[in-house]
Amino acid sequence: MNILVCLDENYIRPLKVMLYSLFRNNENSYFTIYIMHSQISDESIEDLKLFVEKASNSFANLVSLKIGNEEFETATTTFHYTKEMYYRLIAFEYLPRDLDRILYLDPDILVLNRVDSLYNTDMDDYIFAASIHTTPGVQEVNRVRFQVSNEEETPKNYYNSGVLMINLDLQRELVKEEEIVNYVNNAKKMALIMPDQDLLNVVFQDKIKTVSELKYNYDARRYPVYKLMYEYADLNYVMKNTVFLHFCGKQKPRLGKYNGKFESIYSYFWNKAEDLSRQLQK
Amino acid sequence: MNILVCLDENYIRPLKVMLYSLFRNNENSYFTIYIMHSQISDESIEDLKLFVEKASNSFANLVSLKIGNEEFETATTTFHYTKEMYYRLIAFEYLPRDLDRILYLDPDILVLNRVDSLYNTDMDDYIFAASIHTTPGVQEVNRVRFQVSNEEETPKNYYNSGVLMINLDLQRELVKEEEIVNYVNNAKKMALIMPDQDLLNVVFQDKIKTVSELKYNYDARRYPVYKLMYEYADLNYVMKNTVFLHFCGKQKPRLGKYNGKFESIYSYFWNKAEDLSRQLQK
Repeated sequence: MNILVCLDENYIRPLKVMLYSLFRNNENSYFTIYIMHSQISDESIEDLKLFVEKASNSFANLVSLKIGNEEFETATTTFHYTKEMYYRLIAFEYLPRDLDRILYLDPDILVLNRVDSLYNTDMDDYIFAASIHTTPGVQEVNRVRFQVSNEEETPKNYYNSGVLMINLDLQRELVKEEEIVNYVNNAKKMALIMPDQDLLNVVFQDKIKTVSELKYNYDARRYPVYKLMYEYADLNYVMKNTVFLHFCGKQKPRLGKYNGKFESIYSYFWNKAEDLSRQLQK
Repeated sequence: MNILVCLDENYIRPLKVMLYSLFRNNENSYFTIYIMHSQISDESIEDLKLFVEKASNSFANLVSLKIGNEEFETATTTFHYTKEMYYRLIAFEYLPRDLDRILYLDPDILVLNRVDSLYNTDMDDYIFAASIHTTPGVQEVNRVRFQVSNEEETPKNYYNSGVLMINLDLQRELVKEEEIVNYVNNAKKMALIMPDQDLLNVVFQDKIKTVSELKYNYDARRYPVYKLMYEYADLNYVMKNTVFLHFCGKQKPRLGKYNGKFESIYSYFWNKAEDLSRQLQK
């Protein structure tokens, strides 16, 4: 299976945690991890390659795709969003032409179960498969941001781009990179809060297949809300069924003051990944 | 490494969780699991053997030691303690004579890190290595139970017998099984609350090496207490350093109403063990 990650040097430690959990919970599967970046040092890439090999028992390898700094240099960035977040949307131009699909994953994710069911989902005429993260608050903010006044013109579904299954074959056929670059460069004027997600939602709204939020993009902050919405969604349900547990928002475990329901499981994987890193650096 | 477990049919599911976590967090180590029991069916033993082989990637095997029902038939048992709890103390008479040491583990434990450091601890002239679980409440109850009136005569340290490193060589030399059987049969009169632990504490008090409670027998109920006692003992410390996380008491995760700090990590391992069991039964 092909996995895409896009990040800068600051996210290498959580990336390792995500990858460690991916390998641990998908034993006997082969992975190629493509890392798109602009500024990660050669030394860090070599360190990551070794980590991927060891953590996966040689079932996975890492391929570095370094993007020139001139790309996206004018793109809107805010204090915790960088240009790396656009890469997932233009990756099709940089990845090997023979890849038919790839699964993009944010580094602030724990993989708890096998990813095959999403990876092999029927993409039909969709370019992407993603989950909807819609809360009343987000709906309201978006109405303002998209400067539309009536409900009908608001994007109906607001997709989270942290877990994104990409149909590369169809994307190559239908999408031009310039369209995306132009959108990004124009986005500055709109002061968008989450520009990559807006791009996905505005430009590709009709090309996204909706997949289960509980299974494929579980927002770790929302345990009590999900529990109210879906009676069956207790902790045991999550551990048994959720594939991607996404630590959305600024309060990350180990990076912020996360104290939620999933603290012990995140801390467990964090420490396993850190231990392995330390061993490899000896 | 040799591992001893002693249980009845009711504890097979948590046992699988404990073993799964042991194998997962002690990769590339070989284990022989000795299961002492009186009433587990041949079918369940075969099922466990297969589970042990698969969960450990063939790094472990299981040996069944069935004890005749006439043993300990008069021993004190209360509603949630059974005669299987005495087995750990007389195991030396039933195990192969060439084993020099063995690590007894309760089934209500998660193994979070490598067990080598306890397994290879220098036993000197000690028969056992265990951790002290002493709380003011327990101290007081014990003073009453041991019917002594002044502090000096109370057992100074109250060892928990859920994680017990056993020096079999020395035990064969120093201990007679009859002494233990006699103690157990007399214990009825004393209405002891935790008879196996009393036996350990009263008879073997001076033959127990004390090992770190935080590392080797962390009482999962006491996270807030440990955090007050040891400033450094936050969740990250536990995940990095604790080898045995012990779900002491009657409120077990998945069996009772456990809602504590370690719910997500226990639920994770519970579901992995259950998944594997289901696959093997197909």
